[in-house]
Amino acid sequence: MDELIYSGKAKQMWTTTDNDVIRVVYMDQATALNGKKKDQIAGKGQLNNQISSLIFKFLKENGIATHFIRKVSATEELVKKVKIIPLEVVTRNIAAGHFSSRFGIEEGLVFKAPVEETYFKSDELDDPFINESQISALEIASVTDLQTMWQISRKVNKLLTALFKEIDLQLVDFKLEFGKTNQNEIILADEFSPDNCRLWDLKSKKHMDKDVYRRDLGDLTSVYEEVLTRLEKKLGGTSND
Amino acid sequence: MDELIYSGKAKQMWTTTDNDVIRVVYMDQATALNGKKKDQIAGKGQLNNQISSLIFKFLKENGIATHFIRKVSATEELVKKVKIIPLEVVTRNIAAGHFSSRFGIEEGLVFKAPVEETYFKSDELDDPFINESQISALEIASVTDLQTMWQISRKVNKLLTALFKEIDLQLVDFKLEFGKTNQNEIILADEFSPDNCRLWDLKSKKHMDKDVYRRDLGDLTSVYEEVLTRLEKKLGGTSND
Repeated sequence: MDELIYSGKAKQMWTTTDNDVIRVVYMDQATALNGKKKDQIAGKGQLNNQISSLIFKFLKENGIATHFIRKVSATEELVKKVKIIPLEVVTRNIAAGHFSSRFGIEEGLVFKAPVEETYFKSDELDDPFINESQISALEIASVTDLQTMWQISRKVNKLLTALFKEIDLQLVDFKLEFGKTNQNEIILADEFSPDNCRLWDLKSKKHMDKDVYRRDLGDLTSVYEEVLTRLEKKLGGTSND
Repeated sequence: MDELIYSGKAKQMWTTTDNDVIRVVYMDQATALNGKKKDQIAGKGQLNNQISSLIFKFLKENGIATHFIRKVSATEELVKKVKIIPLEVVTRNIAAGHFSSRFGIEEGLVFKAPVEETYFKSDELDDPFINESQISALEIASVTDLQTMWQISRKVNKLLTALFKEIDLQLVDFKLEFGKTNQNEIILADEFSPDNCRLWDLKSKKHMDKDVYRRDLGDLTSVYEEVLTRLEKKLGGTSND
């Protein structure tokens, strides 16, 4: 019997018959403001699974080591079992959201070089912003591991900025998570969807991501569907392996 | 006539007849929680001026370039005019205060290596915590300038940790500010007093700093007087130049 090993805000993780493989189930729940805003949005799980599978497949084909194995149903994928490093690794190409409110900078400022931030994954502490010195002191990750995560993040940023540009989307910012395999290799984990990145339509500057939900700007599913449609057109119809 | 050029929470700055020299007046005001708690504490300005003068004189004698020229009255000192870099440069030897609450770490944890943090000096933004990547993006300081500030901070930490230990005080953490001279040299500015550092009595672990005021633990002036007395005993009676 598969066992539930983790239940988060938007995903569940289940064991499989293979000890090294986890089944991820994408749920329809949307949350914002660290869980203070919460809603069921029919179809969201399926859309994120499809989008994330397409992107992880694209990243794999372009040399990024990831946990992704394959999509196995509309809402499920198989991934390699890893030990998640409890850091949110955030890259910002353009000022928006938290960065803008924190530093009083108007949304839309294009940075000369991407801004890199880490947050300590902890629900009870509200995922506090953390710097490298604090990460070392709290022994959350070694300096070398952190360097590896940033090396991968920078490659991902280059690959996805170019990919999204081809489908008329600006990759404003995104959050990655990493895990360690049994062989101690750091690989990209979690998901890549409009839930954990900001995408602006290149022409209209319309929000094509979870800000639609956070800021009550309209219907989330139709926006996510538009992102998926553009991605499928570019990358090919199937998001299976 | 001397002109008032800056009036902060605890200090005023006045022009002098010398264009390169500023007169600093230490006031009796105590504030905490970014100004939400505010009180007049008779004698505090004088105590901070005496303590800070002694420490800056000690740092100067030990090779640290500072803005300090000399103490000119009980509540006044002369300093070199600099352009302040809007960063609070914080070093932590032991977990306390903000760090402990932010990361859920008990006060008193001794770090293997000092934790280094920067905060963006902005009253309206409540001095947000900022990392190096953000400092670069917002062009607050160059990478080289930041390195210089940390080099000086590390030297200050070594010198003052040793100094305070000799008078039975633990230097838990401290905040420095830096300025640029007309010759573009980065030097230590602001003050060094129990207002911007944490000092714990080595034996009793009693708070000997502004936490006495922040946390309503007793009489601030008697605690600051005790710090001054121990410093004077060690460094010699006068805090003049």
